[in-house]
Amino acid sequence: MEKSHDPSPPSNLLKFLKSSVGVRSLEMAMENFKQFLFALSAAVSVGFVSIIFVLRWVFYFREGLAWDGGLAEFNWHPVLIVTGFIFMQGIAIVVYRLPWTWKCSKLMMKFIHAGLNILAFIFAVISLVAVFDFHNEQNIPNMYSLHSWVGLAAVILYSLQLVLGVCIYLIPITPIYLRAAFMPLHIYSGLFIFASVIATALMGITEKLIFGLKDPKYKDSPPEANFVNVLGVLIVVFGAIILWIATRPSWKRPSEQVLRSLPTYGGGSAGTKMGTALSQQTDPIDPEGNGDARRRSGKLEDSGQVN
Amino acid sequence: MEKSHDPSPPSNLLKFLKSSVGVRSLEMAMENFKQFLFALSAAVSVGFVSIIFVLRWVFYFREGLAWDGGLAEFNWHPVLIVTGFIFMQGIAIVVYRLPWTWKCSKLMMKFIHAGLNILAFIFAVISLVAVFDFHNEQNIPNMYSLHSWVGLAAVILYSLQLVLGVCIYLIPITPIYLRAAFMPLHIYSGLFIFASVIATALMGITEKLIFGLKDPKYKDSPPEANFVNVLGVLIVVFGAIILWIATRPSWKRPSEQVLRSLPTYGGGSAGTKMGTALSQQTDPIDPEGNGDARRRSGKLEDSGQVN
Repeated sequence: MEKSHDPSPPSNLLKFLKSSVGVRSLEMAMENFKQFLFALSAAVSVGFVSIIFVLRWVFYFREGLAWDGGLAEFNWHPVLIVTGFIFMQGIAIVVYRLPWTWKCSKLMMKFIHAGLNILAFIFAVISLVAVFDFHNEQNIPNMYSLHSWVGLAAVILYSLQLVLGVCIYLIPITPIYLRAAFMPLHIYSGLFIFASVIATALMGITEKLIFGLKDPKYKDSPPEANFVNVLGVLIVVFGAIILWIATRPSWKRPSEQVLRSLPTYGGGSAGTKMGTALSQQTDPIDPEGNGDARRRSGKLEDSGQVN
Repeated sequence: MEKSHDPSPPSNLLKFLKSSVGVRSLEMAMENFKQFLFALSAAVSVGFVSIIFVLRWVFYFREGLAWDGGLAEFNWHPVLIVTGFIFMQGIAIVVYRLPWTWKCSKLMMKFIHAGLNILAFIFAVISLVAVFDFHNEQNIPNMYSLHSWVGLAAVILYSLQLVLGVCIYLIPITPIYLRAAFMPLHIYSGLFIFASVIATALMGITEKLIFGLKDPKYKDSPPEANFVNVLGVLIVVFGAIILWIATRPSWKRPSEQVLRSLPTYGGGSAGTKMGTALSQQTDPIDPEGNGDARRRSGKLEDSGQVN
């Protein structure tokens, strides 16, 4: 009898959720949440290991870091690209998907998304300055390689994406139909630029290992060659997980309307709201009358044409 | 009076469509169709130009094609990759989206999709044989570079994708829930492998230009260097357009249910069926009761959270 009246929050929360959204959809929501956590942990872990790898590369196998016009200045280029233009950009892409941020206002999340992207852009620009400065000091031509062509195009497109993104989604006067019309392009460009940056990094690694390894050469597979190849593979895996997270409809932040309709919105614990939002997502009833809930149900995504 | 009774098919078709689906949705469907045609023409054109570029590279700047264990054998590698593993794979990815194939059975389209992918795989395997054979003849080590690591991984994943795809979607006994559950992964893997192949090609171009250009060197930007850099950019643009086409919900092949519900299904001209299918897609009424029509309406895609 005492057990059935147990007033501890977890039990109460579970009872409330079970009664309000149903046991089945709650279980599906929790399973969905676990899968998201697993993917996110994998992305962050692989990202961190990539950063450790690039640091070990420049400090253990190379000349370290300095701003002296020499090879140690060049080394800022891979370090800043991996840390900023790959890891930070990747996190910026998936930041809306973190369920514990759904209690935060959309505007605040937009500032975090834009802020991380601006930081990543600054890292990219400094990394370009380092490599141009190094080339000029060493009388190496600039902008001759495919790596430099695709890389510069990616940085220019990224700056355009930033400016357009801020103008359209952060300036309050932009009409809602324009925001809606531009959203598919904003999402596509973001993911395409991110993939291009990774492809450019792979070309950069290839160039550096060919030019940097003289005796033994790259083709003789010295430890540095294999170590940096693994860094390249890690970057690809990081990109793959970020793109997976970013393209799962069931992991999308619920619309403001759904979040506002929750009984605990504006009060209650973050955990309660998160749990309820997650189960709302798997609820077959569409609160917006536009299929959003179905699209986020996970089970059905992209499965319309499987016959 | 004669004009109003004009019995020519185009006028009749237009009248029929206007009355059955409404002028507004028909106009939207036609606009959507024009945009698709523009994107497809761009992809095919850029793809063809890429093939011409790779052929000019090996025939004008390099040693041509032969199977002699020398550089002319190596040249099969870029030619087969660009023609088969990039162009053919790209077309295989978007083949379901061609509106004039919507009158064909889904099974036939699956065979075309699988057939093109198998052909692309054969091209990739022959291109690998060429490069391994060349390396062995010239005493160059195999599998030391990041290009070879990512490239081999892509070919292995591609073969896995082929086997799983055939088992799940072409063997009739596979249960429908398994087909549905596997579809998001099938789509994601397909696009991810395609992007990885392009990234690998960019690394390959980088390697070949560094190793192949001796006097003048790659950094001196001889005509061949710029020409092949442009080939790299063309490949990226081709990939970008294919990924755009493949990720537009409004360009998706309508489900069999929608196609069967058309008044002209099983008879009438291809043009009528295509037009009606296109306007069905923009019809706000959902014939499947699961939001598919809305998802394909183009205007609203991905725009759920623009506030």
